[in-house]
Amino acid sequence: MLVVMRDHASQESIDHIVELLREAGAEAHLSQGEVKTIIGVVGEREIVYALDFDGLPGVEEVIRVLKPYKLVTREFQPEDTVIRIGRSSVGGGAFAVMAGPCSIESEEQMMGVARDAAAAGATMIRGGAFKPRSSPYAFQGMGLEGLKLLRAAGDSVRLPVVTEVLDVRDAETVAEWADVLQVGARNMQNFMMLEELGRMRKPILLKRGLAATIEETLSAAEYLLKGGNRDIMICERGIRTFETYTRNTLDLAAVAAFKMLTHLPIISDPSHATGRRDLIAPMSRASVTAGADGLMIEVHPQPERAKCDGPQSLTPADFSALMERVVPLVELEGKRMGVEG
Amino acid sequence: MLVVMRDHASQESIDHIVELLREAGAEAHLSQGEVKTIIGVVGEREIVYALDFDGLPGVEEVIRVLKPYKLVTREFQPEDTVIRIGRSSVGGGAFAVMAGPCSIESEEQMMGVARDAAAAGATMIRGGAFKPRSSPYAFQGMGLEGLKLLRAAGDSVRLPVVTEVLDVRDAETVAEWADVLQVGARNMQNFMMLEELGRMRKPILLKRGLAATIEETLSAAEYLLKGGNRDIMICERGIRTFETYTRNTLDLAAVAAFKMLTHLPIISDPSHATGRRDLIAPMSRASVTAGADGLMIEVHPQPERAKCDGPQSLTPADFSALMERVVPLVELEGKRMGVEG
Amino acid sequence: MLVVMRDHASQESIDHIVELLREAGAEAHLSQGEVKTIIGVVGEREIVYALDFDGLPGVEEVIRVLKPYKLVTREFQPEDTVIRIGRSSVGGGAFAVMAGPCSIESEEQMMGVARDAAAAGATMIRGGAFKPRSSPYAFQGMGLEGLKLLRAAGDSVRLPVVTEVLDVRDAETVAEWADVLQVGARNMQNFMMLEELGRMRKPILLKRGLAATIEETLSAAEYLLKGGNRDIMICERGIRTFETYTRNTLDLAAVAAFKMLTHLPIISDPSHATGRRDLIAPMSRASVTAGADGLMIEVHPQPERAKCDGPQSLTPADFSALMERVVPLVELEGKRMGVEG
Amino acid sequence: MLVVMRDHASQESIDHIVELLREAGAEAHLSQGEVKTIIGVVGEREIVYALDFDGLPGVEEVIRVLKPYKLVTREFQPEDTVIRIGRSSVGGGAFAVMAGPCSIESEEQMMGVARDAAAAGATMIRGGAFKPRSSPYAFQGMGLEGLKLLRAAGDSVRLPVVTEVLDVRDAETVAEWADVLQVGARNMQNFMMLEELGRMRKPILLKRGLAATIEETLSAAEYLLKGGNRDIMICERGIRTFETYTRNTLDLAAVAAFKMLTHLPIISDPSHATGRRDLIAPMSRASVTAGADGLMIEVHPQPERAKCDGPQSLTPADFSALMERVVPLVELEGKRMGVEG
Repeated sequence: MLVVMRDHASQESIDHIVELLREAGAEAHLSQGEVKTIIGVVGEREIVYALDFDGLPGVEEVIRVLKPYKLVTREFQPEDTVIRIGRSSVGGGAFAVMAGPCSIESEEQMMGVARDAAAAGATMIRGGAFKPRSSPYAFQGMGLEGLKLLRAAGDSVRLPVVTEVLDVRDAETVAEWADVLQVGARNMQNFMMLEELGRMRKPILLKRGLAATIEETLSAAEYLLKGGNRDIMICERGIRTFETYTRNTLDLAAVAAFKMLTHLPIISDPSHATGRRDLIAPMSRASVTAGADGLMIEVHPQPERAKCDGPQSLTPADFSALMERVVPLVELEGKRMGVEG
Repeated sequence: MLVVMRDHASQESIDHIVELLREAGAEAHLSQGEVKTIIGVVGEREIVYALDFDGLPGVEEVIRVLKPYKLVTREFQPEDTVIRIGRSSVGGGAFAVMAGPCSIESEEQMMGVARDAAAAGATMIRGGAFKPRSSPYAFQGMGLEGLKLLRAAGDSVRLPVVTEVLDVRDAETVAEWADVLQVGARNMQNFMMLEELGRMRKPILLKRGLAATIEETLSAAEYLLKGGNRDIMICERGIRTFETYTRNTLDLAAVAAFKMLTHLPIISDPSHATGRRDLIAPMSRASVTAGADGLMIEVHPQPERAKCDGPQSLTPADFSALMERVVPLVELEGKRMGVEG
Repeated sequence: MLVVMRDHASQESIDHIVELLREAGAEAHLSQGEVKTIIGVVGEREIVYALDFDGLPGVEEVIRVLKPYKLVTREFQPEDTVIRIGRSSVGGGAFAVMAGPCSIESEEQMMGVARDAAAAGATMIRGGAFKPRSSPYAFQGMGLEGLKLLRAAGDSVRLPVVTEVLDVRDAETVAEWADVLQVGARNMQNFMMLEELGRMRKPILLKRGLAATIEETLSAAEYLLKGGNRDIMICERGIRTFETYTRNTLDLAAVAAFKMLTHLPIISDPSHATGRRDLIAPMSRASVTAGADGLMIEVHPQPERAKCDGPQSLTPADFSALMERVVPLVELEGKRMGVEG
Repeated sequence: MLVVMRDHASQESIDHIVELLREAGAEAHLSQGEVKTIIGVVGEREIVYALDFDGLPGVEEVIRVLKPYKLVTREFQPEDTVIRIGRSSVGGGAFAVMAGPCSIESEEQMMGVARDAAAAGATMIRGGAFKPRSSPYAFQGMGLEGLKLLRAAGDSVRLPVVTEVLDVRDAETVAEWADVLQVGARNMQNFMMLEELGRMRKPILLKRGLAATIEETLSAAEYLLKGGNRDIMICERGIRTFETYTRNTLDLAAVAAFKMLTHLPIISDPSHATGRRDLIAPMSRASVTAGADGLMIEVHPQPERAKCDGPQSLTPADFSALMERVVPLVELEGKRMGVEG
């Protein structure tokens, strides 16, 4: 940590900082120029994190050079984390495609989508049983019954299933029926849920929050790793900006940045990011060449009758056509589709 | 709802929409110009909410004219909601000032702050027992022990106490010890928590999310009202923008807009919004004249030794000086401080 | 400037930076911890500004502690700049209210608004002759003829007139007819225009850009001061965020921050910031208590027939009612209306 | 245009709108439901653009269904615009790569970069002679001398040259020496410059503003086309968001959206968008698969000694390696590099 003092800060204000540091158990290294004094702070990570000198007399700026996370970094683990679930895998060159409806609506719908998605090359099946909806008057999902339909659909095509944990109290139940537990964008900083899921031994798909920075997303993943759960994926799904043509702004530079900063697999979700069916194909392909380890794509047999997110869902035929253009790119990237057998 | 078709959309695409509407139980009113056809949709609120035609063939745009909330609006209840807790009140001309430390650290700290805040004119006491922290390595709060200290501090000055519910599983416990339950910005769209708190009969302080629109904030409040809890306050605490000089951007136009749109009391939190001690006084005063019904302000006996949010905390002396400049403004607005006896 | 090296950066990468610094004529001060080396850079302002080491091998972050401006700061000039034009003034306790139509449409309109605005207490008259319009199909203003009408309207009420310079080639002409030259938000970083206006000796009203930070706005003002023009006002008029209820987000914390950072008068423009007539009164009043030195408000005799910005214009009667609520606040702030005689 | 009235708006307020429409020469089509009345407005484009009913009594929302542009759209011209300059071309399957330094610094630098860039496959040479700099103390470019060096460098490799017009007064001079005139992000809404350049017959590269929506960018392009200049390229170069890890957020969904909405060639500039050398390769490749018609990339022989934008510049060797990974993607997209001979 660096404490940059204001121009010509008084000796008293400098001494005050030095004293506070000593008190906290950290060391102060002074660098005094003619105009500016800068105090370098050296000490144990936990101690330095807790210090907060912004706004003290004479302080212009406090600059943190230690990151608030460690286990997620490439410095800590240079090689890619690879997550294996049944015959599917993701990371380390294995490319995942998670396909399925926004919300599970019926056995027929779920079975049909799973069959079509698997046939087109999906490596995991997704489906929503508990739905977070901005309005209390919107469809809220089928709940446990939906989970069972999802499980059955996954089993029928021998692919793992991904679904969201909306309420921390449901985590155990969801974990009984699903292979990958999704933390939605709105819960990315629900730290109690992160702690609970960190204690579990199920792979987690952590979605970046709408207003979360790259650093905050890595900090949220650190919560999960700190609990001992090592099978974590991070999912870029668009951030909120002033642009309204798309629902959110897909931040593909974040995908590339995550790949440099962390060993965890990075998934891209063009469906939620754009909210527009006509942008899913180009954004899926752009995600692959940006370096993503996988895609999450909404597929519905009849998007115009979907109870949720119809406008951004592909038909099975569209999805199949998309896969034909995605697979060659995955190979050009030197990766392979993450499914065997 | 209005479905705006693309220029010269085919009759087939128009008929398709009309058929989908009929199927769902809604009526279609066509307005066909030379270039554009617009389909007006009339039907029950729940049915119309569920429809989603964006992205269908021929559809350019879908415009929702019905709001996703009802109980929060001034149309539903023209007069201000007034919340009374002991000798304090807020709304309908009663102005609240909630003061206290970001995190409860000790009995001495909490008692001292409560005494100083009450003496300076605070109408409620705040303090954090469970702290949401971006980094898993930061101080996480004193938990239940903190709650008890907060309760004791409030009782000692006969003022109600406000604290955050961080985990839905703790809601009952927090409700035992606190008078007002705060939903933090990061949990504003934790819909499961909203449902739980909506079933309770304790006043709620709902903080606007960092990336939540005015409409989404009202929808979150609607969740609480829909559960039957009518004592809801909304708190503006800054939104995330590109500006980095302040921690967030305090959106005072939202305060004024909320006042027009809803009957619920609106609180402003300049401490979290700006993250800078030197901006709290001007932003507190601006909040009053923007129409807020109350302020939430962090006060700490020794901000430089605070375990959390030191840079944005006022000393008791600063807080007292601030109150001297706030009270005349409250009166100029035709309101009164929300505490009796 | 501080160059923060990556953890365990190689000696070679450190030496490389030190060499580049020596080459450029700056000094390097090394602070080497066990994990991190930080290089402090000391040298002449112009030299240090030009250095750019982000992205070099071993470099984690480059932190600039010298601001890219100097003449605008309170450190350079502690006392408020006061601008005097005829019987009006702004800054140093004098509060300005600039009122008038978005665009000048006719002599009758302009004369009428000037008379009504002056009667209600406006201290300057504004009006647009050259209009920046997003669409090439929208009304573009009356041009020179409009300028003459504005001048005549100002003279008739003995108040100075403010109007925008849209094209650097028109600067001389506009300066002939107007008392204050406005740089619009879209031109805030039109540096060629800033240089031209910096050479002139007419007061300038510099509007903050929609996506300009506080620092960038101060840098733009520095361009003007550097040219020798000292009569500069900065105008907060809303920044672009994800919120769509208001046209932009009025950043009143920026008003308070500008007041701390610079000696220049700060104006607030709630009309453009909110784009909504019903929010102008509360935002005007909030601007006063946030510390603004003046307001810019759109007034039109018949907003519903205005050729531009009707939805955010006040009628003369509304404006007069607003002034009755603004003046007491100005006085409570210890300021006075900036007009004499 | 649709005027959505508030619930139960008075007949008087409805009649008022209808009267204003009649007065303006437009027709009103009323659709009256039980709760809501919606007024459809039909009339000539120019008339309807000028109407502005937001904020009138009884009006809830005004929705514009006619876009503020026409000539840029695919509806107006379905087939791709192809721009040909010497042996280079862009659009209609021809892929452009514009490479060169942020700022022209010397003959040796410029000649060297041009030679290396051409050898690696660049199709145009870029270089900055007039530099827009946030700080008045930063390097401002070589001016006319730089233009001549750029021209000579382009001639030496027989490739067209691209450079920015910073000041409308320099447009003629720049047009004498350059083949493509760039409008920088900060000038995207400098409408006077757009009008001037629209009258010229030189290809224009229009950069999207930092805070410009997709619609506003298309409107700016419309200004150019309306003047009669048909050789317009649009360049996505990142928008300003809350994320600070990258300089801006590259909006690749905008690239895909532009490709659907307009016939103009779309260029992507990952150098300015990310501001980080290490993200240029993945973002260049993602731009190709998102559908871009070209790339703009900063190349400098010694980035660490560059007078501008060093951190985001590639060395010639890096650029050459990048091109080896870009060309196969261009071909996979069914396009070809836009240079012959």
